Amino acid sequence: MRIGVLTGGGDCPGLNAVIRAIVRKGVQDHGHDFIGFKDGWRGPLHGSAVPLGIPAVRGILPRGGTILGSSRTNPFKEPDGVRRITENLAEHGVDALIAIGGEDTLGVAARIGGEYGVRCVGVPKTIDNDLSATDYTFGFDTAVNIATEAIDRLHTTAESHMRVLVVEVMGRHAGWIALHSGLAGGANVILVPEVRFDVDEVCGWVTSRFRASYAPIVVVAEGAMPQDGDLVLKNAATPLDSFGHVRLSGVGEWLAKEIESRTGKEARTTVLGHVQRGGTPSAFDRWLATRFGLHAISAVHEGDFGAMVALRGADIVRVPLADATARLKTVPLALYEEAKTFFG
Amino acid sequence: MRIGVLTGGGDCPGLNAVIRAIVRKGVQDHGHDFIGFKDGWRGPLHGSAVPLGIPAVRGILPRGGTILGSSRTNPFKEPDGVRRITENLAEHGVDALIAIGGEDTLGVAARIGGEYGVRCVGVPKTIDNDLSATDYTFGFDTAVNIATEAIDRLHTTAESHMRVLVVEVMGRHAGWIALHSGLAGGANVILVPEVRFDVDEVCGWVTSRFRASYAPIVVVAEGAMPQDGDLVLKNAATPLDSFGHVRLSGVGEWLAKEIESRTGKEARTTVLGHVQRGGTPSAFDRWLATRFGLHAISAVHEGDFGAMVALRGADIVRVPLADATARLKTVPLALYEEAKTFFG
Amino acid sequence: MRIGVLTGGGDCPGLNAVIRAIVRKGVQDHGHDFIGFKDGWRGPLHGSAVPLGIPAVRGILPRGGTILGSSRTNPFKEPDGVRRITENLAEHGVDALIAIGGEDTLGVAARIGGEYGVRCVGVPKTIDNDLSATDYTFGFDTAVNIATEAIDRLHTTAESHMRVLVVEVMGRHAGWIALHSGLAGGANVILVPEVRFDVDEVCGWVTSRFRASYAPIVVVAEGAMPQDGDLVLKNAATPLDSFGHVRLSGVGEWLAKEIESRTGKEARTTVLGHVQRGGTPSAFDRWLATRFGLHAISAVHEGDFGAMVALRGADIVRVPLADATARLKTVPLALYEEAKTFFG
Amino acid sequence: MRIGVLTGGGDCPGLNAVIRAIVRKGVQDHGHDFIGFKDGWRGPLHGSAVPLGIPAVRGILPRGGTILGSSRTNPFKEPDGVRRITENLAEHGVDALIAIGGEDTLGVAARIGGEYGVRCVGVPKTIDNDLSATDYTFGFDTAVNIATEAIDRLHTTAESHMRVLVVEVMGRHAGWIALHSGLAGGANVILVPEVRFDVDEVCGWVTSRFRASYAPIVVVAEGAMPQDGDLVLKNAATPLDSFGHVRLSGVGEWLAKEIESRTGKEARTTVLGHVQRGGTPSAFDRWLATRFGLHAISAVHEGDFGAMVALRGADIVRVPLADATARLKTVPLALYEEAKTFFG
Repeated sequence: MRIGVLTGGGDCPGLNAVIRAIVRKGVQDHGHDFIGFKDGWRGPLHGSAVPLGIPAVRGILPRGGTILGSSRTNPFKEPDGVRRITENLAEHGVDALIAIGGEDTLGVAARIGGEYGVRCVGVPKTIDNDLSATDYTFGFDTAVNIATEAIDRLHTTAESHMRVLVVEVMGRHAGWIALHSGLAGGANVILVPEVRFDVDEVCGWVTSRFRASYAPIVVVAEGAMPQDGDLVLKNAATPLDSFGHVRLSGVGEWLAKEIESRTGKEARTTVLGHVQRGGTPSAFDRWLATRFGLHAISAVHEGDFGAMVALRGADIVRVPLADATARLKTVPLALYEEAKTFFG
Repeated sequence: MRIGVLTGGGDCPGLNAVIRAIVRKGVQDHGHDFIGFKDGWRGPLHGSAVPLGIPAVRGILPRGGTILGSSRTNPFKEPDGVRRITENLAEHGVDALIAIGGEDTLGVAARIGGEYGVRCVGVPKTIDNDLSATDYTFGFDTAVNIATEAIDRLHTTAESHMRVLVVEVMGRHAGWIALHSGLAGGANVILVPEVRFDVDEVCGWVTSRFRASYAPIVVVAEGAMPQDGDLVLKNAATPLDSFGHVRLSGVGEWLAKEIESRTGKEARTTVLGHVQRGGTPSAFDRWLATRFGLHAISAVHEGDFGAMVALRGADIVRVPLADATARLKTVPLALYEEAKTFFG
Repeated sequence: MRIGVLTGGGDCPGLNAVIRAIVRKGVQDHGHDFIGFKDGWRGPLHGSAVPLGIPAVRGILPRGGTILGSSRTNPFKEPDGVRRITENLAEHGVDALIAIGGEDTLGVAARIGGEYGVRCVGVPKTIDNDLSATDYTFGFDTAVNIATEAIDRLHTTAESHMRVLVVEVMGRHAGWIALHSGLAGGANVILVPEVRFDVDEVCGWVTSRFRASYAPIVVVAEGAMPQDGDLVLKNAATPLDSFGHVRLSGVGEWLAKEIESRTGKEARTTVLGHVQRGGTPSAFDRWLATRFGLHAISAVHEGDFGAMVALRGADIVRVPLADATARLKTVPLALYEEAKTFFG
Repeated sequence: MRIGVLTGGGDCPGLNAVIRAIVRKGVQDHGHDFIGFKDGWRGPLHGSAVPLGIPAVRGILPRGGTILGSSRTNPFKEPDGVRRITENLAEHGVDALIAIGGEDTLGVAARIGGEYGVRCVGVPKTIDNDLSATDYTFGFDTAVNIATEAIDRLHTTAESHMRVLVVEVMGRHAGWIALHSGLAGGANVILVPEVRFDVDEVCGWVTSRFRASYAPIVVVAEGAMPQDGDLVLKNAATPLDSFGHVRLSGVGEWLAKEIESRTGKEARTTVLGHVQRGGTPSAFDRWLATRFGLHAISAVHEGDFGAMVALRGADIVRVPLADATARLKTVPLALYEEAKTFFG
């Protein structure tokens, strides 16, 4: 059996661990043969592939990124996309495909499997931990550890100068990284996309922290928004319009400025950015990614196409690919309220 | 309401995070009053206590160890133990007790609650992750990260000298740390207490790794045993008899020597020891410990005595204290077999 | 003898290690008595002080920041500043002062000592490593380690998406952090304030890296400037004008945009910011800071006022405070040329 | 010009960084050609070599160990050793040799150069930092950081159980790692090979630490010896005789047992072992190793054979190979006395 593997979407620590586990188990236990498609769905679309044997996966377990490259290419948006893919798969003699990716990448796998009969198994990947079908995804724990370590460091500099430090972390639609790293780092305010924040309330928490003779750390997800969203647009429009990704990570800067002007306290911003998604995976992410890989190849071997592997408690289970990407897993309000014990 | 808190058994990263969460929520949300008993059950036994307000828990979130100290004292083995405890609790005006600990500490809580009416809530703690009632316990993730980082480092020194490196990790009765860190660190052999190992089979894996021009890493839990257990005793008896804890951590040394003599390859041992259980907790452990603390105080507040908090998937639930410690959670054979994909 | 201690300027990992060493040695070996002035020169200016005995310095060795707080207050710019300081020192019975700080803080110490007879000893502190009188200053090694770890992480994300990653690090006037972390992290371009850069040359290195099928990392000191400086001002004026500190850290953003438009390759920026100066010091910085503290108290004890401690090779020496801050230590051109071996 | 490179002796973080710098600069700036000899002097002895171009050194900067392998082979102890080496060098067309290693490896280079005209340049390597000709060697800073982090972790477990923790670190003949990590980690006793220790004095420091209500950390170099050395031999003979390397690392175990029996306090030992010399180098070690490599190739290019590169302050200089290994650099008594401020 010849199996194709591809990784799509933003990179994430643990992708290489998944690839390694798939190939090690597939070759050793089942005698399968592997081919790696380059750059997500762009690979099968353009017939761009590399051999993927045991030597290719040696030593990649601890390495971040993906040896297969990645892209956000969607074959359904390319002329003749699906036909080109099925032809290229046939030409390479590929019997089944393992797609490792997030909502978009797996959405393509679900549809190309369901509508066009391409035999796919999915492995979920989202650094934001926002897929509802699995308790956790790999990469998330690494990102949370990196953000937490940064918050640890920022506490000391905040205290020394009695300044507000605003830390902007990843999370456009879900606040998991902000919530976990904020709690783990002992932040005094945590702002998530799920709950619009009131700047005056934030300033209240900041002020109360200063009154206790400590300096506040505010952790804000990049997708968090103030209650009056227009305010951001009005302020942000001019200074941040020209650079795409600055605008996306603008809430931290904006908030620091607001806090400074409303409380009279100095405020500084740190935007953690890409360091959160690069580098060696944490032990948990290596473990989860490895187990996802082992179970994905088992699903292929057993012909359970259309399935995605998922974590439930400490077990790996299979769920339908189609369901998997149906609903965004956001931070429940009750959990956010729980965290408020530590605000201010 | 005045609530006593104690931590018992071996120390574990995250204990302070539990204490902080209990006190922050208890004081702020419910107006409770706290007292910290020193050194596990020895505290209420001797009436040794310290005040435990918000100032006492400032800044302790990232710190390993426990500000309350710990011990393995069991009041049921002390003359008049239970009576002295109930008297001391009454004298200090304690209405309820939160016991943070492992099998022994919580076993006392279950019995003293069930038989003598002391109102207890439990928080599970075991660095070995071997409590059946909860998916994970705090401290375990930190230990696995430390062991994994050590294995990462040992790979390079093994390769440079083409030596076998045996890494002995914690785990007397359960091999979770060995299994997780071994998988995450890319070990070539993982040995756990649950499955007696065959030294010749281990040597086979070692030799096969050398044949592929790589140097093997063998991760062995301190409680792992060869198939012929008498062999260990015979060999270990003389050289290791005089130091209690050397004998306990002797399997790594013994195995390295056996591998050396049977394969003719140089073998070295590293015993990670206490570094695995000290220092700042990982982000996951801080998160879990914090949530355990928040839910423990809720259980007390709601009068749900005899309960223990536990992790199920991403949720915190309550289980009966008595059940909680009933059964050791060991590594299932199927999971161990899964890991064998990477042996050799 | 009663000795005052103060820390001035930006915070820096290792300040607490200096304070601890001073107090431990001063109290134990010499029987001196200590007082800590708060927030740099603002402390003696306002008579704001705290007791500084052995208990106050327990456990602070591994902690970033400064337990004494810091500020940039310059008594020579305050009405009656020097007189108020000498009065407050007399009132607190202070016989000598140890000032820990950078150019500004030590400049005050030199002048207040030289012109007004205040008995001062200096300990150099600059995270940028730009004081000419000492081989290294504490805090620098920590900052370089943090920046290097970030660059390590960014490599994998750059490779996965074949993007340019621009990393902006500290260094307004000297490029030491950029040079050391860029070399240690395997950057493909390093830009320092000492040498104006040619954007087209930078783009040439970037393109050559892509031709070798790798993705480039560009490390840029916050004070680095393009050859045509007006260009930056023109471009930066509008988008970055409104936030003071964004303008200061604008070169990374600006450069990424230029690279993107000139090479057609995606470019992203990470501004490391305050995480570089917070948190626990590296082992080297703790060692250096501790030794600086021990030698500072010896200088005071021996009456060697007007001296500053400094590192020469592996030795701690004393140099005149006045000389110490006379000349900025910048990256020599020859050293920068050496690094160019790895450009492109 | 064709240049051979070899790495000898124990492995050390930074070896790969040296190799990479040599090859990058040699190929790009000078058009030299490289060959890598395998496993130290065993490589030229047996004519075992690999090509060493730019592709071979891609990505090795952050990796511990050495891609060339290492051994302790001494050609002067092999039959016809020198003749075989000169023949093999001639056969491979090697014009000059860069030897990276410690006392033994460089001693061979000095002699084979001086007596037999083999054109050699040396790069010093000793994780113990005990070469007198250079301020620091790479690998040392990494080892000190690892040991310091371990000590940080052990503090919390010592405090929680009020136990003595003895940490044995590397250093057979020189106590640099013990001294630096002990100072940086806030140890309460530091024992080095240069100064025989008095067990009763050690117990005095331990007891005084407990009196202050803290738990002591004792850092001991593997080569440290009690004043009455026979005592160790007598005690160690029986229990530790059977395993070669256990005997070498026995002082920690022995001391913990002595402390326990003399003070009545529980004592535990951690032997850090090989983790200290493996894994990714610290930023400082990458920087130093890279600069050593760049300067070594310059020395070869300029025909300065018989030279070794060395660090003086922040500069790289050249010294004669013969002098370089003449004298062991041990911890000066004055420096050790300085550290005693923190004992007890």
